[in-house]
Amino acid sequence: MTHPIITDLNRRYTSKRYDASKKISQSDLDIILEAIRLSPSSINSQPWKIIVISSDEAKQRMHQTFVNKFQFNQPHIKAASHTLLFAYNPKYARSDYEKVIDTDIKNGRTLAENKEQAFGAFAFVDLNTDEHGNNAHWTKAQTYIALGNTMHTVARLGIDSTPMEGVDKDMISELFNDELNGYVCEVALAIGYHEESEDYNATLPKSRLAKDQVITIL
Amino acid sequence: MTHPIITDLNRRYTSKRYDASKKISQSDLDIILEAIRLSPSSINSQPWKIIVISSDEAKQRMHQTFVNKFQFNQPHIKAASHTLLFAYNPKYARSDYEKVIDTDIKNGRTLAENKEQAFGAFAFVDLNTDEHGNNAHWTKAQTYIALGNTMHTVARLGIDSTPMEGVDKDMISELFNDELNGYVCEVALAIGYHEESEDYNATLPKSRLAKDQVITIL
Repeated sequence: MTHPIITDLNRRYTSKRYDASKKISQSDLDIILEAIRLSPSSINSQPWKIIVISSDEAKQRMHQTFVNKFQFNQPHIKAASHTLLFAYNPKYARSDYEKVIDTDIKNGRTLAENKEQAFGAFAFVDLNTDEHGNNAHWTKAQTYIALGNTMHTVARLGIDSTPMEGVDKDMISELFNDELNGYVCEVALAIGYHEESEDYNATLPKSRLAKDQVITIL
Repeated sequence: MTHPIITDLNRRYTSKRYDASKKISQSDLDIILEAIRLSPSSINSQPWKIIVISSDEAKQRMHQTFVNKFQFNQPHIKAASHTLLFAYNPKYARSDYEKVIDTDIKNGRTLAENKEQAFGAFAFVDLNTDEHGNNAHWTKAQTYIALGNTMHTVARLGIDSTPMEGVDKDMISELFNDELNGYVCEVALAIGYHEESEDYNATLPKSRLAKDQVITIL
């Protein structure tokens, strides 16, 4: 099968070593961030915050979150061009969805007089919320849509990436407390350009389960 | 900002009415299914099953799962070209990961003598598994990566889609019991071509939260 989509997805892989001298261009970074912003989510909830680790100060701060565990991912923070922290709102509430509706009104998608009616979609949040207002499993899943969309986007741009669940959410909550404002980061994506001689994963064959192991056509 | 990625993501939207006379070509369907198969996931776990609702028999069966709720999504099943059920494994186990490792060995990614060592990555599953062997929240999140990747893929192909959490997982488990084999479907994606005159969502402006509401650059 030959198609640019398949070429892009076959080429992407999890980089294991970055070339610290190579930076993502501002125009590519702008495309990546706009693609993230355009990510779909259930009821257009967008229950995420993305922290872009770009400056040396931010890299140093993120570097320090690996003090207790997942040290194998620590080198990526300073060597990669950027790291994107994908954080989800563990208690998505009506006040959060109101921001979405207000934006829809501003953008001409919803009429101001239909604002209350627009809250009808919030029933999907209620279905996924426990008695303490916690809907972390639902908002986390939405955030992984954005992650999947982002990984496709960077592959399309020829940029290497490293998805990392091996991040210390507690240390990130502590050191990025002001920026996260209660959101939880359990996954990050390092992006940049791999180091030719030391990235052992760059040349290993891609491997996925066979089609008939994961796909059933009825 | 002008770039094909942004054009594709701005063009995609949730179709609210399909033209039942328009079918996705076999070559496009092949690309979509291969893109799904190539989706990334933590430790390459691929903890998903995708059921492709294609035949009239399968559409009738899926149609019937809406008997109790979410009837607003029911029309999509017969009108859309195909519906993809994204199901996750609620109890991902070592035996599941062994299939991944065996495939890696077959594909020349892992040496047979390193098989036991390859199980080291399974520590990530243990971190997300409760005392009953349940890791549904983790496998569901992985499946949403595949969903995000798929939505980007179909947008790129100019195919319309409708992500639906409004599906009845219990009825799907009952009517697709043989195919799901214990996997759980809480989200589906209808794909096809929208009906020009009745799809009110096709012409509404896209709306997302402003960049500074979701992205912080440090």
